[in-house]
Amino acid sequence: MYRTHTCGELNIKSVGINVALSGWVQRSRDLGGMTFIDLRDRYGITQLVFNMDTNATLCEKARKLGREFVIQAEGAVAERSNKNLKIPTGDIEIIVQKVEVLNASEVPPFTIENDTDGGEELRMKYRYLDLRRTIIKESLELRHKMAQEVRNYLGSKNFIDIETPMLIKSTPEGARDFLVPSRMNHGQFYALPQSPQTFKQLLMIAGYDRYFQIVKCFRDEDFRADRQPEFTQIDCEMAFVEQEDILNVFEGLIKDLLLKIKGIEFDGPFPRLSYNEAMEKYGNDKPDIRFGMCIKELSGLVKGKGFNVFDSVEYIGGICANGCADYSRKQLDALTDFVRRPQIGAKGMVYVKYNTDGTFKSSVDKFYDENELKKWTGHLEAKPGDLLLVLAGDKSGTLNALGELRLEMGNMLNLGNKDVFAPLWVLDFPLLEWDEETKRFYAKHHPFTSPRPKDISLLDKDPAAVRANAYDMVINGVEVGGGSIRIHDRHLQQKMFKVLGFTNEEAEEQFGFLMNAFRYGAPPHGGIAFGFDRLVALFAGHESIRDVIAFPKNNSGRDVMIDSPATISNEILKELSIKIESQKK
Amino acid sequence: MYRTHTCGELNIKSVGINVALSGWVQRSRDLGGMTFIDLRDRYGITQLVFNMDTNATLCEKARKLGREFVIQAEGAVAERSNKNLKIPTGDIEIIVQKVEVLNASEVPPFTIENDTDGGEELRMKYRYLDLRRTIIKESLELRHKMAQEVRNYLGSKNFIDIETPMLIKSTPEGARDFLVPSRMNHGQFYALPQSPQTFKQLLMIAGYDRYFQIVKCFRDEDFRADRQPEFTQIDCEMAFVEQEDILNVFEGLIKDLLLKIKGIEFDGPFPRLSYNEAMEKYGNDKPDIRFGMCIKELSGLVKGKGFNVFDSVEYIGGICANGCADYSRKQLDALTDFVRRPQIGAKGMVYVKYNTDGTFKSSVDKFYDENELKKWTGHLEAKPGDLLLVLAGDKSGTLNALGELRLEMGNMLNLGNKDVFAPLWVLDFPLLEWDEETKRFYAKHHPFTSPRPKDISLLDKDPAAVRANAYDMVINGVEVGGGSIRIHDRHLQQKMFKVLGFTNEEAEEQFGFLMNAFRYGAPPHGGIAFGFDRLVALFAGHESIRDVIAFPKNNSGRDVMIDSPATISNEILKELSIKIESQKK
Repeated sequence: MYRTHTCGELNIKSVGINVALSGWVQRSRDLGGMTFIDLRDRYGITQLVFNMDTNATLCEKARKLGREFVIQAEGAVAERSNKNLKIPTGDIEIIVQKVEVLNASEVPPFTIENDTDGGEELRMKYRYLDLRRTIIKESLELRHKMAQEVRNYLGSKNFIDIETPMLIKSTPEGARDFLVPSRMNHGQFYALPQSPQTFKQLLMIAGYDRYFQIVKCFRDEDFRADRQPEFTQIDCEMAFVEQEDILNVFEGLIKDLLLKIKGIEFDGPFPRLSYNEAMEKYGNDKPDIRFGMCIKELSGLVKGKGFNVFDSVEYIGGICANGCADYSRKQLDALTDFVRRPQIGAKGMVYVKYNTDGTFKSSVDKFYDENELKKWTGHLEAKPGDLLLVLAGDKSGTLNALGELRLEMGNMLNLGNKDVFAPLWVLDFPLLEWDEETKRFYAKHHPFTSPRPKDISLLDKDPAAVRANAYDMVINGVEVGGGSIRIHDRHLQQKMFKVLGFTNEEAEEQFGFLMNAFRYGAPPHGGIAFGFDRLVALFAGHESIRDVIAFPKNNSGRDVMIDSPATISNEILKELSIKIESQKK
Repeated sequence: MYRTHTCGELNIKSVGINVALSGWVQRSRDLGGMTFIDLRDRYGITQLVFNMDTNATLCEKARKLGREFVIQAEGAVAERSNKNLKIPTGDIEIIVQKVEVLNASEVPPFTIENDTDGGEELRMKYRYLDLRRTIIKESLELRHKMAQEVRNYLGSKNFIDIETPMLIKSTPEGARDFLVPSRMNHGQFYALPQSPQTFKQLLMIAGYDRYFQIVKCFRDEDFRADRQPEFTQIDCEMAFVEQEDILNVFEGLIKDLLLKIKGIEFDGPFPRLSYNEAMEKYGNDKPDIRFGMCIKELSGLVKGKGFNVFDSVEYIGGICANGCADYSRKQLDALTDFVRRPQIGAKGMVYVKYNTDGTFKSSVDKFYDENELKKWTGHLEAKPGDLLLVLAGDKSGTLNALGELRLEMGNMLNLGNKDVFAPLWVLDFPLLEWDEETKRFYAKHHPFTSPRPKDISLLDKDPAAVRANAYDMVINGVEVGGGSIRIHDRHLQQKMFKVLGFTNEEAEEQFGFLMNAFRYGAPPHGGIAFGFDRLVALFAGHESIRDVIAFPKNNSGRDVMIDSPATISNEILKELSIKIESQKK
């Protein structure tokens, strides 16, 4: 037996008993007559004491134990004279009688502390050491707890956990699939699922009524920051439901998680915004509503006053930054530079300082007098001491730029408190998006999303105007989940494929099984999927999902610890009947 | 709102209330004045009544509803005159006031009944209809319940659920990997995991102490009956443990499942057999101990009596089939044919009938008189009325044949009661297996399995004699789980790789990350993995794991419903820099 207790459970009540502990040497302090070792395991840290006077040999042995050595120690629990109130075991220590090295350790390449000296690349290479750090361990423990709670909650609501296959069929719609050559079926490939979408719909058709799964999904994207080629979804579907039923159930799930995991009681329903409202108030379809600073249109107020920049554009809008009237020239220039970045794309920025003494100072004083500016500040509900920031241009681009500027100001003013969770639903998304390059419509969510019933007639006349029965859940500016009521009528699904430019043959080849299933009594159904990595990161207060994944890949999709992907022998490729083409120059 | 209740919850207490139900038409009966419809959903069946006298139009409408139509019905709950005691809703029916077709259905290609008229191929093609059958639905509900219970039990024992990656690195040791070409890394491939083995070991090195995961694994095998290319494991690992600790925890898990899922209380510890004992008593390393009929060696008793067949072989052994002394010539011939099948490989079979009148009749009467035969029956503890079946040959082959014969007799005599669960541990497996073809040793479990400490010195001298710190859990003749104490010492692991014929370079390339991790304080650890599909099938009383998998593949690895694997366009293959070689003739 390696231990009688863990390093996290002994306390003042244990004084006097003999124990065996096993763990890692976190640190050791040699005070001449005494040597102290902090022994660490998953559960905590316990102090070991070795006394030169009573057992010199043992004390000498203890002094040779290096950082991260794995040891077993036996001894008696004693009360500490110098208590450590910061840890649950801080009242006691172990007077060691016997110590054994279970495994030695070389000096680790970085310190195993929350504030480590290791850079990301090094820590990823030695991820098994990085995972020893408390901050990462707590993230993975949180992830475990959240997964258990999701399962308990959905289980209590009659959801049934059903595993859908990982080796499925490639569908060219959407992002790129990862493919898996089939050795047994020459020249053919499986694909890894981007989501279990069609399978969960088939489960509804099969009568399973309420399905969920916490499931790995795969997307072969050109890697962007904080994307992983494999990621985890909480995937759910319900039959015989309307949008309202789904919003209620999953609002319940998030409230349950906030309560059970974070101890936050959320009263009342989550706010709801239409896609249009979100865009017009926040310039963003995943608004961070922890703070206001909403966008307001100024076009009506500011046009026709001889300022050509405003007169010539579609839209003028602004935000009000509280208490920023004293911004310096330099600060304002930095904001102007920010909005002019190519990815934001504004041409310039107009400001109005509503000074604390009630006077105004703006970058457009030539065109607008105090009276006019007063109207602006009135419209934006500014008080003395506030700063208005105004952008102009085409409507959609300007709203987007104002949205980015709002987030930047929120950041600078520290308005996004990590301990506050501000969830909301965004509803009534457009069903389709026009792509200028390929001159066709794409599904904004996916091709199975139902249009709002009253918009179905628009599918022929004005596809861009059709709204979807779709919804996103957003928390603190992060889209944590999204879903829709699905099409369950074969003819409507056929029409949808047609609008998306599928030929009948393509629709049949890729989704024939689903269209067929619709022939045999498909119930009305809908669902949602949450990005589990993202949700855990949000709850853990981490910026990156990598911090809540045990073995993440880097931004080129590599696992630098195991050095994967890797080359494969020609014999094995031959068995798969595939050959590697030489690299494109 | 589509429903106020499900089809499984209304009972005599609900009489008088108005309800809305949604579901599928299971069957309808038109009795002239009255039409009855059984409405089905996941939760049960509720009878709908339509009366020609009170509402002829509605009744006419009801008569047109075909099998598997999806409908919504509103009406009042009434007490039935003709109660159905077999179902929980059998006391009531709904007097329907309004009915709406939510979706029509074509006539399904087979009946949606437990006793369906559909063959396997057809049912797999229309799996979404097959899944509607109660027998399959109950299997998947059982699977869900078992998964939840496994998670609750292990969670309560401080195990933490950690997701390991799906896109990993290929290792040629063991079965074939499924490969995934990387688009971003030219000419390189990920592999799908056959198990999270190395990752769970790294988690122990990282200090996670107790890990579990219910996880998909992949094996590209030449498909055998009842194997799936993707399957699910309950994967577990513990640190600072010896074999005994692991046996206790996971014996606890299986006892918990038997109790919570099957209502079976299992007293006392599970029986334990060494691999050698299992082979000698049952001719099998996964013995079905629901019945006895153990093998006994007869060599000492039967040799040297002038019967050359026995005198010339290594081993003679037999089993005693209770009450089979009256077997006919034809029955005995059939058993002889059975053991002579090539896959069993016995040359012939000797029988001894111990007749109820106390006389003996055997196929070797010429060589053995009544006195001699009495010794045989005495050794095999036969009573009058029993039949001895005796095989001879080389020891390992004959034990194997006797084991098969024992199972065949157990089957014929119906000794394997499906409601009885007889678990046991098989211990002390050989560490290595010699392969004649490639003239090298292979790891019987895998290369990370620890030898028993007292056998380590044999690794150089006599590798075949080394026993492993490995264990299998067997229930009713099915190996449901297996695991081992792992090597945690770098030098021992290196030696193991050497014994297995790895060069240093190969070991480094494939498992360098693990060997490296051993440098930084690897604790003693071990684990186990259960075949979850197999375990659920056993609990469900199904022969095939396909019956407990929502969307299984057939024996050629195809999903015939979605028609996968499938060909891929050349453009996509080009992006992946791979080409298909023409098929070998």
